[in-house]
Amino acid sequence: MKFHAEAMTLGTAAREASPALMRAGGGLKNAVLASICTRLKKQVKSIMAANKKDLVAGKKAGLSSAMLDRLKIDNARLDKMVQGVQQVMALPDPIGNVLDGWTRPNGLRLSRVRVPLGVVLIIFESRPNVTIDAAALCLKSGNAAILRGGKEAIHTNLALGKVISEALAECGLPKDTVQVVKTTDRALVPELLKLNRYIDVVVPRGGKGLVQVIMDHSTIPMIKHLDGICHVYVDRAADLTMAQTIAVNAKAQRPGVCNAMETLLVHESVAKEFLPAVVKALKAAKVEVRGDETVRAVCKGKGVKPASAEDWGTEYLDLVLSIGVVKSIDQAISHINTYGSHHTDAIITRDVEAADRFKREIDSSSVMVNASTRFSDGFEYGLGAEIGISTDKIHARGPVGLEGLTTYKWIVEGEGQIRS
Amino acid sequence: MKFHAEAMTLGTAAREASPALMRAGGGLKNAVLASICTRLKKQVKSIMAANKKDLVAGKKAGLSSAMLDRLKIDNARLDKMVQGVQQVMALPDPIGNVLDGWTRPNGLRLSRVRVPLGVVLIIFESRPNVTIDAAALCLKSGNAAILRGGKEAIHTNLALGKVISEALAECGLPKDTVQVVKTTDRALVPELLKLNRYIDVVVPRGGKGLVQVIMDHSTIPMIKHLDGICHVYVDRAADLTMAQTIAVNAKAQRPGVCNAMETLLVHESVAKEFLPAVVKALKAAKVEVRGDETVRAVCKGKGVKPASAEDWGTEYLDLVLSIGVVKSIDQAISHINTYGSHHTDAIITRDVEAADRFKREIDSSSVMVNASTRFSDGFEYGLGAEIGISTDKIHARGPVGLEGLTTYKWIVEGEGQIRS
Repeated sequence: MKFHAEAMTLGTAAREASPALMRAGGGLKNAVLASICTRLKKQVKSIMAANKKDLVAGKKAGLSSAMLDRLKIDNARLDKMVQGVQQVMALPDPIGNVLDGWTRPNGLRLSRVRVPLGVVLIIFESRPNVTIDAAALCLKSGNAAILRGGKEAIHTNLALGKVISEALAECGLPKDTVQVVKTTDRALVPELLKLNRYIDVVVPRGGKGLVQVIMDHSTIPMIKHLDGICHVYVDRAADLTMAQTIAVNAKAQRPGVCNAMETLLVHESVAKEFLPAVVKALKAAKVEVRGDETVRAVCKGKGVKPASAEDWGTEYLDLVLSIGVVKSIDQAISHINTYGSHHTDAIITRDVEAADRFKREIDSSSVMVNASTRFSDGFEYGLGAEIGISTDKIHARGPVGLEGLTTYKWIVEGEGQIRS
Repeated sequence: MKFHAEAMTLGTAAREASPALMRAGGGLKNAVLASICTRLKKQVKSIMAANKKDLVAGKKAGLSSAMLDRLKIDNARLDKMVQGVQQVMALPDPIGNVLDGWTRPNGLRLSRVRVPLGVVLIIFESRPNVTIDAAALCLKSGNAAILRGGKEAIHTNLALGKVISEALAECGLPKDTVQVVKTTDRALVPELLKLNRYIDVVVPRGGKGLVQVIMDHSTIPMIKHLDGICHVYVDRAADLTMAQTIAVNAKAQRPGVCNAMETLLVHESVAKEFLPAVVKALKAAKVEVRGDETVRAVCKGKGVKPASAEDWGTEYLDLVLSIGVVKSIDQAISHINTYGSHHTDAIITRDVEAADRFKREIDSSSVMVNASTRFSDGFEYGLGAEIGISTDKIHARGPVGLEGLTTYKWIVEGEGQIRS
């Protein structure tokens, strides 16, 4: 009950604060963002002091050095936060755009106009920079925000929250327009996820574990990223030099992210020529290679481990790759649609028909021809910002920019029309 | 476990059948629809015989005459079904449209292309015509469908399902592209709602009770209509003749539907002139009128019952109306955003500023100026078809046409680009 009351307070306060921001023009919203930048720079000392508290507590609690590093804010990271907010400021205001419109035979004039969702809940893990990033994206898109960060970063998040509230107050917007959740108890989260009357969408930003928990509890629609089991298929008509460069880039350039390749599929007619070279290049990039029987036979003595059935459905997020040989493009398409996560899959080919079939038949949010899966990203796609990469089909699919935090309303104008 | 197995069979069969339809062109999809029309006409006798079984069973089970009437199929209703399918045939194919696209500085060419969702589950109540209507909409939008109708209509639904399977077979599409669920046990529904791996979206078509049950159980995204508490606000600058005509139309033209008005708000400066006349006209249309204190004082002796606090949040779906007097447009907007269901709300005014504020500040899927709320409807908006009227903000809002059953994918084409 205690938490229910607190969740309700957060939800109702956000809903009450929301209309003022929904109505705010682009100038006012950018003024808040500019004030956040100024205050971030001015309040460096108090932010660092709060961050220090978190680091000391984290060390005491036995956090790994990698986690402590993620938690840490230094001058360079603060500068990056400011730059991030400035980038959001530079984006065009998505609100008020007319999507389409027409006139009906009875004279009614219709249009669909882009509007904010209303209230957005963002749940994230240890990196405190998400507090500023998420607040900037929500403010720019006209949405009140409830930001629920990791327990380890609570002092830092509250210091950043103070910066945001002061900027809101300076510009005459309600302080609850952006709320940084003070309670670190995990029991609050499922309570927040019941508030579909007050919160319009929840965006989890974190690993699959976090997303799964939210999926299990949420009665609020989600914009979510679950997993990225991305494939590169090297067709019989591939440029094999290009294929090798892309394969190494897709796997090894940054293996811990969702758009890295997890499985390489190779057409049997190029297997003998392609596999030994690509395995050598992958090994040089420190990738552990697992292969099916054909791969292991072709690459005998090259240290290819056997791939189990489980490998085809595994998101390694690491320097590990499974390789399979397929008899045809049909088998490649079927494998990807079955074992993949419908995130991002690429074909390497010179053959128009193969490219066309792949584009049409792969049921993934991003389907690529002759490019690295690593490009699947809001910034690389030119969206200017990234809310996340959605693995859902509903609302927003693939990289999601500011528009993902908006909806539309129908405006219908007449001169007294009634229905008969 | 028994039902779990059956749900799984339905889900996996739909998923397996889906790719063939996702790839199908508009010509093939229309050929299936044409074959459904032909077969509906040819199989009149067997459909009527099946319907007779349902009517006999329904009478035995004590269904009301209204329910039996809804269940009944006669020649006129069969003709209407055929006409409905023909209308869907005439719509442009939504699949394959390019939504937008651009080229990145590194030469990558991006486009977003409209594609089917994949598998759609439709859960509906007694009217068996929904079987044909829903199948036609899913087929046209390239989606495999699982259709779960009411128990009372099971024989009719299965006879209609046979028509659909035969049409699919004739055109070389898998028979499980459209599955009519044979089991009438209610326990199957929650099991189906767990299959988010196989089903992409669930569309409930029925009353609030049905929708609420599905909301409570579904792990699958929904396109749903919850309730329609629609308002008409008569501004101080309203044309009062227009206001009265619209008020009577919005309430009484068809009171049992979601876009009918449930609350009329009147600016105090026109209350004395407007209220007695509109109450008289509403009474003449057999509407029970409930009012706040001001309304009752102004309309003394006119049989206006007192409106309780509960009335402002009630969807009567009947010839009942609550009327309130407001001191300002601010109070009207605040009332509507608080007590309404964000469905459809109208202002009657000659004043541009009032119209602009209402359009901007009312947070509803349809906001109308000088028109009856009854126009909030896919056909009236010119969408050519209606999946439903969404009261969600995510994915589709307000009247939803065929596009609501689609998503997009990103196509990314390069010449060997890698990320650095």
